[in-house]
Amino acid sequence: MNYQRFFEEAVDQVQAEKRYRVFADLERIVGRFPRAIWRSSGEAREITVWCSNDYLGMGQHPDVITAMQQAAGNMGSGAGGTRNISGTNHPLVELEQELADLHGKEAALVFTSGFVSNEASISTIARLLPDCLILSDELNHASMIEGVRRSGADKKVFRHNDLQHLERLLAVAPRERAKLIVFESVYSMDGDVAPIAEIAELARRYNAMTYIDEVHAVGMYGARGGGITDREGLADEIDVIEGTLAKAFGTLGGYIAGPRSVIDAVRSYAPGFIFTTALPPAIAAAATASIRHLKASHTERDQHQRQAQHTKERLAAAGLPVMSSDTHIVPVLVGDPELCKRASDHLLEKHGLYIQPINYPTVPRGTERLRITPTPFHSDALIGELAAALRETWEALGIPFARDQRPAQQRTDRIIPLVVPAAGG
Amino acid sequence: MNYQRFFEEAVDQVQAEKRYRVFADLERIVGRFPRAIWRSSGEAREITVWCSNDYLGMGQHPDVITAMQQAAGNMGSGAGGTRNISGTNHPLVELEQELADLHGKEAALVFTSGFVSNEASISTIARLLPDCLILSDELNHASMIEGVRRSGADKKVFRHNDLQHLERLLAVAPRERAKLIVFESVYSMDGDVAPIAEIAELARRYNAMTYIDEVHAVGMYGARGGGITDREGLADEIDVIEGTLAKAFGTLGGYIAGPRSVIDAVRSYAPGFIFTTALPPAIAAAATASIRHLKASHTERDQHQRQAQHTKERLAAAGLPVMSSDTHIVPVLVGDPELCKRASDHLLEKHGLYIQPINYPTVPRGTERLRITPTPFHSDALIGELAAALRETWEALGIPFARDQRPAQQRTDRIIPLVVPAAGG
Repeated sequence: MNYQRFFEEAVDQVQAEKRYRVFADLERIVGRFPRAIWRSSGEAREITVWCSNDYLGMGQHPDVITAMQQAAGNMGSGAGGTRNISGTNHPLVELEQELADLHGKEAALVFTSGFVSNEASISTIARLLPDCLILSDELNHASMIEGVRRSGADKKVFRHNDLQHLERLLAVAPRERAKLIVFESVYSMDGDVAPIAEIAELARRYNAMTYIDEVHAVGMYGARGGGITDREGLADEIDVIEGTLAKAFGTLGGYIAGPRSVIDAVRSYAPGFIFTTALPPAIAAAATASIRHLKASHTERDQHQRQAQHTKERLAAAGLPVMSSDTHIVPVLVGDPELCKRASDHLLEKHGLYIQPINYPTVPRGTERLRITPTPFHSDALIGELAAALRETWEALGIPFARDQRPAQQRTDRIIPLVVPAAGG
Repeated sequence: MNYQRFFEEAVDQVQAEKRYRVFADLERIVGRFPRAIWRSSGEAREITVWCSNDYLGMGQHPDVITAMQQAAGNMGSGAGGTRNISGTNHPLVELEQELADLHGKEAALVFTSGFVSNEASISTIARLLPDCLILSDELNHASMIEGVRRSGADKKVFRHNDLQHLERLLAVAPRERAKLIVFESVYSMDGDVAPIAEIAELARRYNAMTYIDEVHAVGMYGARGGGITDREGLADEIDVIEGTLAKAFGTLGGYIAGPRSVIDAVRSYAPGFIFTTALPPAIAAAATASIRHLKASHTERDQHQRQAQHTKERLAAAGLPVMSSDTHIVPVLVGDPELCKRASDHLLEKHGLYIQPINYPTVPRGTERLRITPTPFHSDALIGELAAALRETWEALGIPFARDQRPAQQRTDRIIPLVVPAAGG
């Protein structure tokens, strides 16, 4: 075994499949969001970021930055230990109270990332429950899939957002068997929303526990930013709500909120929670400031929805194959991994617009896309610039426009028909 | 299935086993390390922390805090995306270069935590290698065990630091079979050190790959703080060095450093790396400042060793059952989970000294202990106060002193004999 050669070949294979990822080296500029400095081949250049998950720009909000700086100045740069061994800092305790309140739950538990929160919570809940059967949406995020796998529990995958399929799977399981339904509210690559009320109703009928991932919704939906469950008044109907502090809240970390007994069990049994350093006080304080701001302020949410809608309309009007989306996420279909990468490179180099290509395994092959995330800070002028640059790119590279999409191409049923909006286009 | 009742019972079981953990709510005070405010039952009180993994107090170093505050002010509070989707911030790129340099390796890769770095790296390396056999030290950290499990690879556990046992396991495997030896340099609960040179020699002889966890050594050992491999000039002999930014470097996150091909393979294949938000620029900048400081400065390391040694001597002189340790970690044996918890509570409530009890599953049953981590900021006066408080606690609760340890008690062979040091006691 020649280890060196083996790993070189493993990377060559990724290259051969056109899946090799080159990370864009970025330096965002506070006060000029969504602008950033992009470094490449020794040169630095200003560009516009169009694919950030800092969905509301809260990562540059003065309250959030001040909270972070003050906590760092007062309490230092790290937590200094695991939660159990000196790492439970006071801002983290306050953050967990804030999160429990956000979702109207008895308790909350913070993890170092959303990935870890899903993996550790799902695997621990399903491992503790005797002979648990997991029912998992087929488009669940990689972190949920890892949690399901790690639990070692039986699992059945139901077709995406398909209530009939889910019900059939529930109906054949014994009523007394422990069952856990895991799903997302907003699916981040397509931007569609789960039928939460109906899933909760099925869970009640068949005595299943429910676990929802709201990472692409918290902060952005609901009267207080509690996510889609907040917007639809359904938080009480779902047992465990998982969320992130690293997207709309602009910081780092993940969490679950739910009944005290479940939270305490995960806290007591999950290795991924127990054996890891706690989040620094500065991160916790920044997250709390962000959540508190978004509990009270609607401005960011309103402007976010307006600019997302405006982006969809402008791009559709330009003939681009915008995939239908019920949310703030604007996917534009390319349908080929190499073209997708080339489109992204072209946009960055020629137009100074950064949109990362989304290829397999993040999305199914044949549905490669540019995933655009307008924020409240993407002005109408920037949206116009984006539409023109995308059009030029589509033409230059010969990518099919909406009218030219091959019927055989997956998901073309989801392309928004070409419409010219009445105004503001 | 009554879910609520089930989880209540799961927590009751932890309570019944005296393993229920109550996290101390702490607010550390920059400039007055190791002092902190402890909140309990609505009251706040100043205490001394004796169990922090901020081993050198770098979490309060002015350079580190300033770097964090400036990066937050300039670039915001979060990364805004995964590494691939807009989250690769410039301070993180610099941090990875700094880490590769620290260990004299071609490349490095940063993860959101040390736990994730072990889990993701070990599982990915062993999963990629065809028919890999993992050889794992029996006292490896939970995060390494999770990585081994997740890989699905065959594994053989060798007795702790036992070269003969390791060699026997290597010798029976075919030479051409892929083999990965995973071990730690400093074992954090006992403070003992692995025979790294000998393990590297065995790896060469039997054509195995080596992966070392240096989380309890980086920053603290070696001319530039590169860990035990740095101190012993062995970094070149080990393939992958894993470390943390959350202990001696005082911030958050974990990393691996190694050959470019291995780093690139983990970067390209590990779900726990790919599908998670990048570390914030402020954390990366703080970590880099800390690493750079400790590359050049020996003051912290020297003072750390001096105060750790002094603590061991003072506690042994007081008749306390200090377990032998080759490093900065000072474990004091209690040998009973309930007594251990009561000793910790007594120290905190009566003496204002915070030392978390370490019980099963972190250490084997019967070896429950107080794990003390003196830092450069624990003065001789504080050490004297600690020795007196521990003595009073041992007497008040009837915990066996060194001379009274029952021979049957596990690991009593490792109790340091009672010696009165010549000076400074």
